[in-house]
Amino acid sequence: MSVYEESLSLHEKLKGKYEVKSLVSVDSREALSLAYTPGVAEPCRAIQKNPDKAYEVTRKWNTVAVVSDGSAVLGLGNIGGLAGLPVMEGKAILFKEFAGLDAIPIVLAGQDIEDIVLAVKMISPSFGGINLEDIAAPKCFEVERRLKEICDIPVFHDDQHGTAIVVLAAVLNSLKLAEKSLAAAKIVVCGAGSAGTAISKLLIRSGAKDVTMVDKFGIVCEGETWLNDSQAEMAKITNPERRRGTLKEAVVGADVFVGVSAPRQLTGEMVRSMNEKPIVFAMANPEPEILPEEAKAAGAFIVGTGRSDYPNQINNVLAFPGVFRGALDVRAKEISEGMKVAAAHALAALVETPNPESILPHAFDKRVAKTVAEAVGRAAIEEGLARNS
Amino acid sequence: MSVYEESLSLHEKLKGKYEVKSLVSVDSREALSLAYTPGVAEPCRAIQKNPDKAYEVTRKWNTVAVVSDGSAVLGLGNIGGLAGLPVMEGKAILFKEFAGLDAIPIVLAGQDIEDIVLAVKMISPSFGGINLEDIAAPKCFEVERRLKEICDIPVFHDDQHGTAIVVLAAVLNSLKLAEKSLAAAKIVVCGAGSAGTAISKLLIRSGAKDVTMVDKFGIVCEGETWLNDSQAEMAKITNPERRRGTLKEAVVGADVFVGVSAPRQLTGEMVRSMNEKPIVFAMANPEPEILPEEAKAAGAFIVGTGRSDYPNQINNVLAFPGVFRGALDVRAKEISEGMKVAAAHALAALVETPNPESILPHAFDKRVAKTVAEAVGRAAIEEGLARNS
Repeated sequence: MSVYEESLSLHEKLKGKYEVKSLVSVDSREALSLAYTPGVAEPCRAIQKNPDKAYEVTRKWNTVAVVSDGSAVLGLGNIGGLAGLPVMEGKAILFKEFAGLDAIPIVLAGQDIEDIVLAVKMISPSFGGINLEDIAAPKCFEVERRLKEICDIPVFHDDQHGTAIVVLAAVLNSLKLAEKSLAAAKIVVCGAGSAGTAISKLLIRSGAKDVTMVDKFGIVCEGETWLNDSQAEMAKITNPERRRGTLKEAVVGADVFVGVSAPRQLTGEMVRSMNEKPIVFAMANPEPEILPEEAKAAGAFIVGTGRSDYPNQINNVLAFPGVFRGALDVRAKEISEGMKVAAAHALAALVETPNPESILPHAFDKRVAKTVAEAVGRAAIEEGLARNS
Repeated sequence: MSVYEESLSLHEKLKGKYEVKSLVSVDSREALSLAYTPGVAEPCRAIQKNPDKAYEVTRKWNTVAVVSDGSAVLGLGNIGGLAGLPVMEGKAILFKEFAGLDAIPIVLAGQDIEDIVLAVKMISPSFGGINLEDIAAPKCFEVERRLKEICDIPVFHDDQHGTAIVVLAAVLNSLKLAEKSLAAAKIVVCGAGSAGTAISKLLIRSGAKDVTMVDKFGIVCEGETWLNDSQAEMAKITNPERRRGTLKEAVVGADVFVGVSAPRQLTGEMVRSMNEKPIVFAMANPEPEILPEEAKAAGAFIVGTGRSDYPNQINNVLAFPGVFRGALDVRAKEISEGMKVAAAHALAALVETPNPESILPHAFDKRVAKTVAEAVGRAAIEEGLARNS
């Protein structure tokens, strides 16, 4: 039986991957009068007086909504909210398993930007944070930007920022092994959608000075007519030499290749054209931009993919549980770029002696979420973004 | 310590009354590949092909959103969504305790009708049903009507219909004891807001021919200038004698008084002006329209209140868990008037030998939700409203 058949059969058996558990008994009139009416009026009044009290008398402090319109579900494309529900339930239980958070899967009936923004804003008081998931680019940028403006809790598009944090950690440890600096490294990011944009921004925020993005039409460069708004913005802060052309031209002399695009974009010949000790992260799913054995044969120093059956898996689960845990622990108002950078550095530092086959912690390493959470919480406090410190 | 102080202290200790529990382990790569990526793609594809499959491979079949804008929270008024969260969490755990349903508290950031309708519609694919809670009248009528039109899952405003079902059950058993018929009974409903309107409608749907509503300005009668839209609608199907005047005039000769209004509206003198064997349900909370001892002294044959410290408590918990359990068990598209009437009859029939001090089942009687659910499911199937039968 394939993993797909086996998964369908498991899902049919489970009929859902989460349940709501009550933390208090309501099996007598006395219990009911405390957990519900009339006693419950008192915690309500306390929140009415001081909204932050909601973190102390409700589950808000530990809850995350996992929200998707199903417009870009991993490997499946635009299947709509309802069909994406098994993914969101899966994501929700990862939050629990890895960070003890109570995550609620919320799939949407519509895909219009205005409707998504209004709906998420409206339901936001119920939660301590909002994890946006599998929303297509470039729509995801506006949805997230507007929600960050109007919500007083963290809003985090994991496909963008979770990936960016783990890639940054991987790049940091890889460059250390290659004895190169982030400031001097030439980095090519292949794929100029949501993940590629977030990765490029976070690399630059962390000190990278030469990041070049490549989309299916070619190198992202100011003046190209095919750029969307987000790519036009990125063209201003990337590609310092104003190069034009294809991926093949972009990778010549590069130190790092980061792929979040499509299968088989990178050839052995291209790897050979890179700088010495080339670092290749080929994260297209399930088939990477180049197979690790092929990249290695062409001289790649370090190779990572999104897959668990090769070394150096770039897995979002290394980031999002700890990021939200840390943000919620200090009741952060948002998740800032600084908090993401702190998460990446904490993740990288967890590997005491990186080697080319092991540049990141293992996904099931119990220290990960805790360490990331502490770093994120500390950064929030330093930036004045914590309600609770 | 008062019940209020004790409740606040309990809430501070618990920090929330529910948690999300995972039904599947994701502690290894193998487990992850089945519950999440890549295996999860298969249940997603199955739903994409057939949306009803969501009831078989996700938790949709067992989930209810408890949604409130906090505009009319029991006894507290318009405190807003966030401050109403402790009530919604309480309601959610009642769904679990009494009917095994997974209910998610969702409190809203706004109170505008358009925003509420859009937000609830947007999140509806995630759930098997929507329980609207503590939304002020007359707004609640439009919110519910529109959501019922656009959602393909049950939408049920419990403050209206839960109350109406339990009142109908109480009226049925009380009239039986008084040896009167519903068709011949003169019934006065004091309070022409959400609960009063739903009660009046359900009584009429069940065969009552003489229902008169009274609001704070007087008897609801066609032509009165103070009627809101909903009251104007009700004026057409109530008050057959087109009486005008005050509550005092309305109750003269009445067989049943149903109060969902404010403390101390009904006097002993008014009870004495009613027909023989007067039936009085005084449900204003926490202080009823008339105290039971006062009503009894004035000759009331049967008295019920919303309180647990007197006999005959009219408690919504007798209705909503079973109503949703029944609706979800047959994957109902909506909860119809017929399903509500069936619920009330099932509830009434559970009391084998009603007596004036015991006209309804006990709130903690384990048979209640199951019996109500069966009746509701049966009615849904008969009316062709079930996806699954």
